[in-house]
Amino acid sequence: MPSQSTATEEFWSKAMGVFAAHQIKTEPDDLANWGTDWTKSFRVDPLAIVFPESIDQIVHLVKRAPEWGVALVPSGGRTGLSGGAVAPNQEIVVSLDRMNKILAFHETDKIVHCQAGLVTLQLQAFAIEHGLFYPVDFSSSGSSQIGGNIATNAGGIRVIRYGMTRRWVAGLTVVTGTGEVLKLNHGLIKNATGYDLRHLFVGSEGTLGIVVEAEMRLIPQPEEQQVMVLAISDLDRILDVLRAFQSTVELSAFEFFSELALQKVLAHRDVPRPFSNASPFYALLEYDANQFEVANETFERVLEAGSVVDGVVSQSLSQATALWALREGISESIASFTPYKNDISVRIGEVPGFLKDVDRIVTQHYPDLEVVWFGHIGDGNLHLNILKPAELAIDDFYQRCHEISPKLFSLIQNREGSISAEHGVGLLKRDFLNYSRSDEEIRLMRELKRVFDPYRILNPNKLITA
Amino acid sequence: MPSQSTATEEFWSKAMGVFAAHQIKTEPDDLANWGTDWTKSFRVDPLAIVFPESIDQIVHLVKRAPEWGVALVPSGGRTGLSGGAVAPNQEIVVSLDRMNKILAFHETDKIVHCQAGLVTLQLQAFAIEHGLFYPVDFSSSGSSQIGGNIATNAGGIRVIRYGMTRRWVAGLTVVTGTGEVLKLNHGLIKNATGYDLRHLFVGSEGTLGIVVEAEMRLIPQPEEQQVMVLAISDLDRILDVLRAFQSTVELSAFEFFSELALQKVLAHRDVPRPFSNASPFYALLEYDANQFEVANETFERVLEAGSVVDGVVSQSLSQATALWALREGISESIASFTPYKNDISVRIGEVPGFLKDVDRIVTQHYPDLEVVWFGHIGDGNLHLNILKPAELAIDDFYQRCHEISPKLFSLIQNREGSISAEHGVGLLKRDFLNYSRSDEEIRLMRELKRVFDPYRILNPNKLITA
Repeated sequence: MPSQSTATEEFWSKAMGVFAAHQIKTEPDDLANWGTDWTKSFRVDPLAIVFPESIDQIVHLVKRAPEWGVALVPSGGRTGLSGGAVAPNQEIVVSLDRMNKILAFHETDKIVHCQAGLVTLQLQAFAIEHGLFYPVDFSSSGSSQIGGNIATNAGGIRVIRYGMTRRWVAGLTVVTGTGEVLKLNHGLIKNATGYDLRHLFVGSEGTLGIVVEAEMRLIPQPEEQQVMVLAISDLDRILDVLRAFQSTVELSAFEFFSELALQKVLAHRDVPRPFSNASPFYALLEYDANQFEVANETFERVLEAGSVVDGVVSQSLSQATALWALREGISESIASFTPYKNDISVRIGEVPGFLKDVDRIVTQHYPDLEVVWFGHIGDGNLHLNILKPAELAIDDFYQRCHEISPKLFSLIQNREGSISAEHGVGLLKRDFLNYSRSDEEIRLMRELKRVFDPYRILNPNKLITA
Repeated sequence: MPSQSTATEEFWSKAMGVFAAHQIKTEPDDLANWGTDWTKSFRVDPLAIVFPESIDQIVHLVKRAPEWGVALVPSGGRTGLSGGAVAPNQEIVVSLDRMNKILAFHETDKIVHCQAGLVTLQLQAFAIEHGLFYPVDFSSSGSSQIGGNIATNAGGIRVIRYGMTRRWVAGLTVVTGTGEVLKLNHGLIKNATGYDLRHLFVGSEGTLGIVVEAEMRLIPQPEEQQVMVLAISDLDRILDVLRAFQSTVELSAFEFFSELALQKVLAHRDVPRPFSNASPFYALLEYDANQFEVANETFERVLEAGSVVDGVVSQSLSQATALWALREGISESIASFTPYKNDISVRIGEVPGFLKDVDRIVTQHYPDLEVVWFGHIGDGNLHLNILKPAELAIDDFYQRCHEISPKLFSLIQNREGSISAEHGVGLLKRDFLNYSRSDEEIRLMRELKRVFDPYRILNPNKLITA
């Protein structure tokens, strides 16, 4: 086996047939940067990073990869939390960073045709400039790219009203593992001409094809939004509160976080505590501001019923932003604790029993660790973050979490839930997939992988093993 | 080869191991009835019709079919328009008629878990009984079944607001071609655990698996709706009218029909002409009745601009129903003319040019035939119905239409449109699939078929040939 530097030299001599020198990076710092995502527990060891500037370059690379004997890791904004964009084994990272343009805007269709490397925030901004709205949003929207959103079917904070990324993908251009370019659906609303391959690529984590362009659908701008934060004393009452508001206002978000989550945000950011007294749990609601009267009535009702103990509501856009900061600041505020992130979901009706399940697991197995609860409870999605104590070595911490996770996953399986609600499978959940998918489903997924990527060059060993 | 009756006898002796006698039909009338759909131009020659009453029976049948040497045609309400449920070649028709129950209602999730044979209208009625709404609707909802809707990704009249059937499928149980039962997604909103096979089955026309159960999502009931019908003199102005209303009210429907379509309805039903003067084209709009003021203002604006020449608006539910009858009565009123149905779509922005394309084709190639135009123009979907003159033999008529279709399909291909917007491919469009899907897409579709149905027993030669 050649040494690293020989391998690198060999790669340069081959890659220069496809890329210009400025499109290739092999310096250690660059390999470390583009070779990983937001996870910290996986080996990072790419052979090189390439920055294609056209679909043709990607096609050439994919077609040559089998003879070169290298695998490819498609890479977007690298904000993933499951290691889907990590290159642990001398792969070539294919960064979409330089394919980040808006190619066309079909005004009547409200469709933006863009390259996969477009940053989510830029699509949101483009929409606003045109009096429109791109409704998928989450805390990493300033770095994440549309191609990555599609490859992971990104969700976020407004799924309760607008669904996942999938719903907004009107057309998709992908390069398959054989270097074929598929242009799927062309932005059509109605197209009943056989299997909708587009939907197979959404959420496939770069294992079936490289998303290179997309036609993303926008919608009219919503009304001004109002934000309400509620203090809740009892986990059991969360769903009562959701139901009460859902029957009276159209919710854009229904978020949940624990007192410990709030404490972490308050310690990290200069924001005031929303209520003078602490409560074990909080909910954040967002809805059209013109529904404020009925929202206030509903609040009075759940207060009287004892489902909530206090509430605060935004009276301006800046207040709304400040309340959102309590929820959106959580991930950032706990990042320094190297959290072990469980991203789990059940059907909404299963939420109360599921929260009790989780509470039991946490009390029994993590009594000595800090556990930060938050999530999109309106979608049945809970983020359970186990924080690493400063004195515990990271490997020991992860090993302990990995030992406990299957106990949690078993309870999720019993409720027909998902062990990865929106973070994807990548490397982190791959060996636990059977808790949410049957053996036959996993077998079929392997067969599908074989159809689209017969030479196994696209993101190998992510999501499923060969 | 055994004679028909020997084959039938042999089938009975084998099938009695799986089904009770009352679950099998082989009488000629029954074969003719359950062996076809709403199409009239395909050979109908099934071996038998079976009526399973459980998933187990379907699994047994699928597992034995290869050794019996028979293929299976899954069959729902048989309202299809592309021959997807036709049994032309001694297949066993697997009717879901007796698997038509609602199994559970998850109130918090607003999910109905039902068997595939549930009639669409019954799901709609169940929703209303529970203060909810199932938004997919079309003229065959009184006969069509949920399983068939899923297998064809049914669309209809409110797609502009609520999307296709796909959006409402929260979970799916299918039996694959190897007799494996897949329970997909379990009603979850967020589930990022690999390839979403559910979406592969939606619109697969029974070629990858038999849909046996589904979890369908309901929504809160919408506001009362108002209906407006507009008279339009110029095809070019249709899209101006759509844009004007879309920017002011939230449309639930934007339908289009021609004067000839209206004439056919008036001749067939006892309904009055909406305007004293005939216009070449009409549009029907539906929107929340509480938006009537801004709708009226918009009408005044498009009237002044000359985009419409007249308008009428519903003042009650019965008036709204009467106006809808003008549009919904079209299919029924032209049924006796054995129409050759083109169901085509383009991106909405392409509609004006596309309508001109179609006009040119019609003028050039069908000058002597009646052509009824209608469709869901708000979704880019046009139904172009060529009526058979009474004196022309059906085979000659179809042959002539089949000769002209490719000219139309070429123009659709140039605009990246779909040769089957919502009717599916079945037998009717199979040999024209290349106008909307690339060679590589069709090759991949064949590979997927092989993965899910390796013995080729599920609806063979529908959608794609082997």
